[in-house]
Amino acid sequence: MSVTKSKFRFLLIQAFSLPDNSRYALRRMQGPKESMLMNYGDVAHLLEDVEWDLHPGAPVPHGNWPVETREEFCLVGASRLPVVRAACESGIHNAIVLLGGGDPGYVESREIGRRFGIPVTACAHAQMHVAGMPCNRFSIIDISEAHNMRMHDLVVSYRFTERCASIRNINFPLPRPPEFNQRPIHAEKERVARGETSEMLETSIEESVAAIEDDGAEVIMLGCSAAYWMQPFLQRRLAEMGWEIPVLEGYSCAIAQAKLMVGLGLDASRLAFPSDSPKKWRRRKPC
Amino acid sequence: MSVTKSKFRFLLIQAFSLPDNSRYALRRMQGPKESMLMNYGDVAHLLEDVEWDLHPGAPVPHGNWPVETREEFCLVGASRLPVVRAACESGIHNAIVLLGGGDPGYVESREIGRRFGIPVTACAHAQMHVAGMPCNRFSIIDISEAHNMRMHDLVVSYRFTERCASIRNINFPLPRPPEFNQRPIHAEKERVARGETSEMLETSIEESVAAIEDDGAEVIMLGCSAAYWMQPFLQRRLAEMGWEIPVLEGYSCAIAQAKLMVGLGLDASRLAFPSDSPKKWRRRKPC
Amino acid sequence: MSVTKSKFRFLLIQAFSLPDNSRYALRRMQGPKESMLMNYGDVAHLLEDVEWDLHPGAPVPHGNWPVETREEFCLVGASRLPVVRAACESGIHNAIVLLGGGDPGYVESREIGRRFGIPVTACAHAQMHVAGMPCNRFSIIDISEAHNMRMHDLVVSYRFTERCASIRNINFPLPRPPEFNQRPIHAEKERVARGETSEMLETSIEESVAAIEDDGAEVIMLGCSAAYWMQPFLQRRLAEMGWEIPVLEGYSCAIAQAKLMVGLGLDASRLAFPSDSPKKWRRRKPC
Amino acid sequence: MSVTKSKFRFLLIQAFSLPDNSRYALRRMQGPKESMLMNYGDVAHLLEDVEWDLHPGAPVPHGNWPVETREEFCLVGASRLPVVRAACESGIHNAIVLLGGGDPGYVESREIGRRFGIPVTACAHAQMHVAGMPCNRFSIIDISEAHNMRMHDLVVSYRFTERCASIRNINFPLPRPPEFNQRPIHAEKERVARGETSEMLETSIEESVAAIEDDGAEVIMLGCSAAYWMQPFLQRRLAEMGWEIPVLEGYSCAIAQAKLMVGLGLDASRLAFPSDSPKKWRRRKPC
Amino acid sequence: MSVTKSKFRFLLIQAFSLPDNSRYALRRMQGPKESMLMNYGDVAHLLEDVEWDLHPGAPVPHGNWPVETREEFCLVGASRLPVVRAACESGIHNAIVLLGGGDPGYVESREIGRRFGIPVTACAHAQMHVAGMPCNRFSIIDISEAHNMRMHDLVVSYRFTERCASIRNINFPLPRPPEFNQRPIHAEKERVARGETSEMLETSIEESVAAIEDDGAEVIMLGCSAAYWMQPFLQRRLAEMGWEIPVLEGYSCAIAQAKLMVGLGLDASRLAFPSDSPKKWRRRKPC
Amino acid sequence: MSVTKSKFRFLLIQAFSLPDNSRYALRRMQGPKESMLMNYGDVAHLLEDVEWDLHPGAPVPHGNWPVETREEFCLVGASRLPVVRAACESGIHNAIVLLGGGDPGYVESREIGRRFGIPVTACAHAQMHVAGMPCNRFSIIDISEAHNMRMHDLVVSYRFTERCASIRNINFPLPRPPEFNQRPIHAEKERVARGETSEMLETSIEESVAAIEDDGAEVIMLGCSAAYWMQPFLQRRLAEMGWEIPVLEGYSCAIAQAKLMVGLGLDASRLAFPSDSPKKWRRRKPC
Repeated sequence: MSVTKSKFRFLLIQAFSLPDNSRYALRRMQGPKESMLMNYGDVAHLLEDVEWDLHPGAPVPHGNWPVETREEFCLVGASRLPVVRAACESGIHNAIVLLGGGDPGYVESREIGRRFGIPVTACAHAQMHVAGMPCNRFSIIDISEAHNMRMHDLVVSYRFTERCASIRNINFPLPRPPEFNQRPIHAEKERVARGETSEMLETSIEESVAAIEDDGAEVIMLGCSAAYWMQPFLQRRLAEMGWEIPVLEGYSCAIAQAKLMVGLGLDASRLAFPSDSPKKWRRRKPC
Repeated sequence: MSVTKSKFRFLLIQAFSLPDNSRYALRRMQGPKESMLMNYGDVAHLLEDVEWDLHPGAPVPHGNWPVETREEFCLVGASRLPVVRAACESGIHNAIVLLGGGDPGYVESREIGRRFGIPVTACAHAQMHVAGMPCNRFSIIDISEAHNMRMHDLVVSYRFTERCASIRNINFPLPRPPEFNQRPIHAEKERVARGETSEMLETSIEESVAAIEDDGAEVIMLGCSAAYWMQPFLQRRLAEMGWEIPVLEGYSCAIAQAKLMVGLGLDASRLAFPSDSPKKWRRRKPC
Repeated sequence: MSVTKSKFRFLLIQAFSLPDNSRYALRRMQGPKESMLMNYGDVAHLLEDVEWDLHPGAPVPHGNWPVETREEFCLVGASRLPVVRAACESGIHNAIVLLGGGDPGYVESREIGRRFGIPVTACAHAQMHVAGMPCNRFSIIDISEAHNMRMHDLVVSYRFTERCASIRNINFPLPRPPEFNQRPIHAEKERVARGETSEMLETSIEESVAAIEDDGAEVIMLGCSAAYWMQPFLQRRLAEMGWEIPVLEGYSCAIAQAKLMVGLGLDASRLAFPSDSPKKWRRRKPC
Repeated sequence: MSVTKSKFRFLLIQAFSLPDNSRYALRRMQGPKESMLMNYGDVAHLLEDVEWDLHPGAPVPHGNWPVETREEFCLVGASRLPVVRAACESGIHNAIVLLGGGDPGYVESREIGRRFGIPVTACAHAQMHVAGMPCNRFSIIDISEAHNMRMHDLVVSYRFTERCASIRNINFPLPRPPEFNQRPIHAEKERVARGETSEMLETSIEESVAAIEDDGAEVIMLGCSAAYWMQPFLQRRLAEMGWEIPVLEGYSCAIAQAKLMVGLGLDASRLAFPSDSPKKWRRRKPC
Repeated sequence: MSVTKSKFRFLLIQAFSLPDNSRYALRRMQGPKESMLMNYGDVAHLLEDVEWDLHPGAPVPHGNWPVETREEFCLVGASRLPVVRAACESGIHNAIVLLGGGDPGYVESREIGRRFGIPVTACAHAQMHVAGMPCNRFSIIDISEAHNMRMHDLVVSYRFTERCASIRNINFPLPRPPEFNQRPIHAEKERVARGETSEMLETSIEESVAAIEDDGAEVIMLGCSAAYWMQPFLQRRLAEMGWEIPVLEGYSCAIAQAKLMVGLGLDASRLAFPSDSPKKWRRRKPC
Repeated sequence: MSVTKSKFRFLLIQAFSLPDNSRYALRRMQGPKESMLMNYGDVAHLLEDVEWDLHPGAPVPHGNWPVETREEFCLVGASRLPVVRAACESGIHNAIVLLGGGDPGYVESREIGRRFGIPVTACAHAQMHVAGMPCNRFSIIDISEAHNMRMHDLVVSYRFTERCASIRNINFPLPRPPEFNQRPIHAEKERVARGETSEMLETSIEESVAAIEDDGAEVIMLGCSAAYWMQPFLQRRLAEMGWEIPVLEGYSCAIAQAKLMVGLGLDASRLAFPSDSPKKWRRRKPC
């Protein structure tokens, strides 16, 4: 594997880490890297020819629960930047993959990566770019009002408003104090694994069909990383109904995009992400 | 003045504060509030009927120089949120005005304000909204490649791409180590005050004329707060050339917008800024 | 109050006046200014620091009924311009507020105001600009097919098509010969005042909910001035259902926008509203 | 010719008529219909199979000079509507062609025509629709700052912003008191007729080339009817330079569009131009 | 008729011809020209003053059934180009009308026509241009998933996305092996002729109403030429329901547009359809 | 290498093949696959882990020169489809890469591939998708008026008009009878290889700088495959001038995109490319 060895050397960085004892954790915060990467089996084939490390994420600055509001996304995004900067400075990896569905700190991380010539990818950004390849229009199946609006902000700032048919809410918010989550997402996943009916999956199917029939979606993407586990199930169930539509989850898209960019020798454009003392400057920029 | 007393009670929050001994400071970090508010004379008439306080801004987290890159904007934005939250919790003010040209932390601050029913305004956001009132299309006169791209991000995320004719760069970057700024902005301001020629102002005139003649601008807005001092001079000089075009700086727009919102009993919409446990939720959101 | 005295001196101009004996009148055509301003109580707080006069409007040129078709809007708009011109020439006021929901004569009035340096505001224009401040997307609740299309024309010409989620028709047309109105609007208002059920209000609630759930509205604005009275009731009822959404009526928005423009020293841009012999001209204008 | 006799029976209505003694007249206000139709020779072939009458236009309400500002367009538009209504009521014609470059009263006239099942066409509207047939993108060559902005308003309200590459100003304003026109347009036309050089035509060539090379124009349309005489000269001169680009004037386009609509049995859509008591109404209208 | 003789000399070219013995034929492949033109009676009045010939279309290259998939449209389009080229070279006609609902080979045919100064029109292109004249927004009533996507491609490439409210599928696919069509379209037409109920027409009414009420359509256009026969029936039935909305079929629109272009002396713009060795070239083209 | 063996099995298909004796050939039409793939060295690293075959392309149907006009693109596109269909039926490859800059037959090939579950990529489509990853806005450097318009058609139909800053013409048309090319492109390439000055490269640099400074380009893509050889030279020269901007050629992008799609198990969406007898169909499709 000496050839591929030098080709792809990726660092995957989690969005944040929760305290060990948090009752709100949705994934493992330590252990072998494979165990910490949710749904590892779904992306293992893409990591076969990659030398990869996994950073567990900076400690969450706002409490002991996951990220859902804009305030939390901002705080978590800022806490992630030193991790990205340190990774770039280490010189070990040739691409950085930011895990997490709402891309906290992504734009800023690309700016950092740009200075080191290292491409940085993130889940929602990669999904939206991939979504345009097989079709014109995608819908986002997502978990809650607050998270929907984060996805909305990303669609706007990544300039995909014309290609996003809709954001569909299945209303399975992340756990958060003071109330303990009545419908924990990991329980839904386990139900599906046991062959039982999951309300989360059934609602996702229903909203996907509405996205197809009412909104014109030709691809479905999953918004929050806590919903990525549904990808194979949702795609299969829709196909069984006669809707042969691709369903995209973020980890595989972000890894695949990182490979594409390394393969093409690309990172962010210096014109879109200028340094603080650029060699050349432009008098005028259109929007 | 007992009537107006209860009407407008504003907290103005600086984008950040630099260490006392920073050689890169562009404004005073302590003293009477009027002395800490740059170009106070230009906005004094708008503050006459306002009870206002000024918060000097959270200490800058990234060094001892101002904000210009996306990374710096993210870090400063995050450091600002606890200030906003504390202000909302205090119950003293009925609106918050975020000072600074690139609106660090604005979207998140609106979300916080929303929970307390307090409107939050910010300079670039207010300028863009005001710019649309007298005309169709505005251009931004701004200071550097990196800051231009921050303004660009704001135009996109505030959804003003169709109304923004251009961003024009006068190339007067903010001071930053290791190199000491060759063309300090405060020196330019002093030159104009002395009736001398300022390269910064002359370049701004040149770029404003190009924005009018080539880009179709019908209003000019200044991008970085370090350039706001030029507003009366630029507007007058352009008028003397025959171009009677409004020039907008951010402090007055943000204060005026705060008054409008208080007058109308408005803050951010709960649908655009949902709480983490909203009473009602929507199945579908368009982009 | 000597300070505010000189600050805001507004003339409010009605869209038109009907003959005294018109059976189709929806508001009082004479009496104290407060009595002629519909729903005065809803905007009184905004007029507290304003010296204001009210012009009853030019006599309606097309008959003895209100304005609803495009033909009527054109005729009424033209009949209004001499009133605006005379007001500007008088030099008494520092802003003009055009009352009425469909903004007859507004674009032309701004051109006139521009020559005197006097800002002119109008209800729908002000509502659309205000609507963008708390959110991305508004819907218009409006009274009839014909009036809907007038609102549609305004959305297009003010360039708000991307922000207008929908125009919703409650189908309460204005009274007009030969048929006498079966469902007079003032009777609806009185019903609500008496605590009874109003079909007009109930339909407005229903259409507002559809606008929120189906169209993505984050703010509601009322289209026709004959419907402005519903603002507090509609907002409260929606909030009680869990939809905490701002509802905008036109008078308050137009007054608040006039204050903002006077505060900032703005009127229409001379580039958007050139005089007939401008000092400078441009070779090229984009659209 | 009995077949064509019944096919096309058009009334051409001038935008306005000036007093007989006006020194600002650009065309004849009385005489045989052919003599009152400017550049009759350019459109005669299109009128061969048409039975047509020409209405000289309602007297101009604002003075004794042509129309150029928005105020003047509004007043002239309103004064034209009774003429249109009377023509529709007469039942003599099966289409109405509104002459004049800035389409005063057009939208309202279509609404009137709709009630009688009579199509109404106007110059700029017809030109913009025709312009899209051979190409993607047109530019407007037009006469003055004020008239440019009228054309701009039409581009926006007719929803051609994406197809309009630019409006180019040749700065030949219409005559207007107090100053007498230094460069009368009819003198330019005579110069060209004599084979001499016309500054108006030369500037139009220059601006057309700029529109082609800089703005991406693929068709040129002339804005003001006072400039329509240039059509054959401008098209020929551009072709001689190697730019084989169609140039459109408004009379021929409006006549040809009227024939097309009569041929297809079309007038304005009743959904876009609802009557005041429509049989059916819609709950929702998008923008 | 010597005058009209020289005015309009059109060649109508069918999209393709099927083998004589094809069981999938929807129209006659030989006989008098009137018998080969489907629904001749609906367009006869437009052809009265036209000298016209009809080309039966190049033999279908892909089998013995009509065109529905993108592959078939491409093959048929290519097979049509020699017919167009030969027609242009013959010098007999002054316009070419391409029959068929999905416009196979249209863009390329315009390029060919351009070199000979001959305008070429096609059904969907003409319908979309005509649709914009009476209104803002049209919907397409069309026959099948595959054909819908062809219409979708045309809307995009003709740049009518903003004016197309929707494509509505009545699901009456064209006949195609191996399965023989269960619901042959000509049987539907015969049913309507006999005054019986046609499922195809009833579904079209249902989808048209949905287009009006839900999508904002103000004009209906029929997508596939096999559905053009419904035009008078659909328009009448909708009017009887109270929806007075124009319904457009392609033959009349394409003929009428050809007349308009001949009347105005227009063909495709040489800038949009450059020759392979143009006299002038442009450095830059916007999109 | 047994793992990668099964992963990527690509067929690269040339746009067309010219007769052996054509004097207009720009590349080799036979020999080892590496020799037939232009600039093989630039993409060799991407093919290392791919089992690939190269199809020389169907014989050009229109003559003995390359493809440049729309007519030629249509004919060549149609001639390519049987090759694609045969390749899909063979079952040997798991992706098809269409070579050539203007993507002849691409949309139809995707439809064919869809039925076999095989992704098909093409150069311009891949470049435009890749271009969006590092930035917002790309410009196309392209060879001639006619080819520019083909690229323009692709930008529109792929829906990248908002991201395409401009198409820039370097005016090096492909060879074509009757005139023999005065400035053969391969001579330019050889000049650069010899370290001499190439007018083609210098013009490309000039137009790239104009695209950056005037049009807002943040990435450059090369339009015609005959210009792909410039990629490394153009990127280096621009970087030496201080413009660190990615330059994209089509072969590498199309190969990399094929790998991404195989990695993610994606081909075209069945909703965007329905079969002729789909299991499910939708009533409504937006545009």
